Amino acid sequence: MTTDATGTGVTEQALASLRTTADPRLRELLTALVRHLHDFARETRLTQEEWEQAVAFLTATGQACTDTRQEFILLSDVLGLSMLVETLHGHHAPGATESTVLGPFHLTESPVRALGDDIDLVGGGQPCVVSGRVRSADGTPLPGARVDVWQADDQGFYDVQQPGVQPPGNGRGLFTADAEGRFWFRTCVPAAYPIPTDGPVGALLRATGRHPYRPAHIHFIATAEGHTPVTTHIFVAGGDYLDSDAVFAVKRSLVKDFAETDDPALAREFGVPNPFRHAGFDLVLERTP
Amino acid sequence: MTTDATGTGVTEQALASLRTTADPRLRELLTALVRHLHDFARETRLTQEEWEQAVAFLTATGQACTDTRQEFILLSDVLGLSMLVETLHGHHAPGATESTVLGPFHLTESPVRALGDDIDLVGGGQPCVVSGRVRSADGTPLPGARVDVWQADDQGFYDVQQPGVQPPGNGRGLFTADAEGRFWFRTCVPAAYPIPTDGPVGALLRATGRHPYRPAHIHFIATAEGHTPVTTHIFVAGGDYLDSDAVFAVKRSLVKDFAETDDPALAREFGVPNPFRHAGFDLVLERTP
Repeated sequence: MTTDATGTGVTEQALASLRTTADPRLRELLTALVRHLHDFARETRLTQEEWEQAVAFLTATGQACTDTRQEFILLSDVLGLSMLVETLHGHHAPGATESTVLGPFHLTESPVRALGDDIDLVGGGQPCVVSGRVRSADGTPLPGARVDVWQADDQGFYDVQQPGVQPPGNGRGLFTADAEGRFWFRTCVPAAYPIPTDGPVGALLRATGRHPYRPAHIHFIATAEGHTPVTTHIFVAGGDYLDSDAVFAVKRSLVKDFAETDDPALAREFGVPNPFRHAGFDLVLERTP
Repeated sequence: MTTDATGTGVTEQALASLRTTADPRLRELLTALVRHLHDFARETRLTQEEWEQAVAFLTATGQACTDTRQEFILLSDVLGLSMLVETLHGHHAPGATESTVLGPFHLTESPVRALGDDIDLVGGGQPCVVSGRVRSADGTPLPGARVDVWQADDQGFYDVQQPGVQPPGNGRGLFTADAEGRFWFRTCVPAAYPIPTDGPVGALLRATGRHPYRPAHIHFIATAEGHTPVTTHIFVAGGDYLDSDAVFAVKRSLVKDFAETDDPALAREFGVPNPFRHAGFDLVLERTP
């Protein structure tokens, strides 16, 4: 029971009520949550009206979620929380490929494809080859490593966003690295795109004067025996929004040149007509401890 | 773009993205929110799995909300946030009645009733009279003040929770103080009751080993010209859960004796048969500044 005007008594009661939590990690998380939540309200002197608006916003966010839409993940993304959690637990070994957020579009299993296959099943965009090597941090190539790839098309849409327009599996492929750990595939250069803005998160972006765009990128998950998998993107160098990704997922080491080339030897090697764009990068994995 | 393992770079980017927020108060609130949210994740080293559980919990909380149920308010209540916001902006003038939370059951307009009316339309519980005076902090009685009352019945249910069992308006009344600022009405002694436990908030209470009960109480909103309204409860002294209210709303000054009496003069004054229980308390309002 409390009579204090700063509410520290209420905070103490709320914290004390968590002491009976059986799971020690849950107790730790809820204790930190209540402390920060109460400090937030106290520092800002949150009003009853603002609290009501927050309740309405969170309710609308929950109610915007469906089987194919996760508005709370989107909220976490635009507040930088998703990228922070990713950063706290991601890859940091020197020389290993940096990780970044999974994002909400890894919804379907990527079709198994052969090295060199074209994942652009529609053929609308700028032809492009992505190639590289999967290797261990000490340089050892990793033959048989799996490289899961997914991307938006040249208009900025994923296949799952345009059923009936794009064939299922467009922009997706699951590749197996060759005997020297090499992988390569054909695709189109992806476009930047906006995250969905027709829900509460869109309203938040408008209220904060922020654009909803993500810079153009291709997603990867690389896995190899005896190594920690890495979930990452590569970003198209020189593209828009690299310094203002709506979800804060850009890391400098992941920005890659997609340079135009008309090298006849390269074109022959990859079996593409000249000129084409070429992005090269290695996926470097940490050995499992 | 960031490469740091503690994620301070992500936090800086997320904070910087809020600088374009047009409304200065919204900018202040969101800045404090991002700072606390990121500090929470960093201090606890929140994992991807825990983040996924949090997203699922918040989604379920939003989806449990309906026209007659507000699970996010309930969540705010059991984390002590509702009571904290109330405390930060509530009544603190010396001598004035302390405020407490509105709660989720002031859903309908209370029926206008005459002084002395019985708000227990069913007649199941212990007969009781509540009486007092509405006055200004300097002692001046406030004739014509309005006293809005609502309470659970002797089984711990509000009318809106039992349509078809309780008649609408059971346990509710809107009274007008007499020429000396006095109010009195008949009712039954309310019972303690559990908040709803069949949703995500119930699961949270179970995981924290907490009971869901609120101590027995009667709600009041008192309004009078030239004065700041007060929203409050009185709690039944000696009842269970006074030291462990699930929503932390008990203040010592609001705990009142509901003493049994067989005083013939009192019984005559209130028109009730002896013995009965009697709770007396004054509603003391601050003059509007």
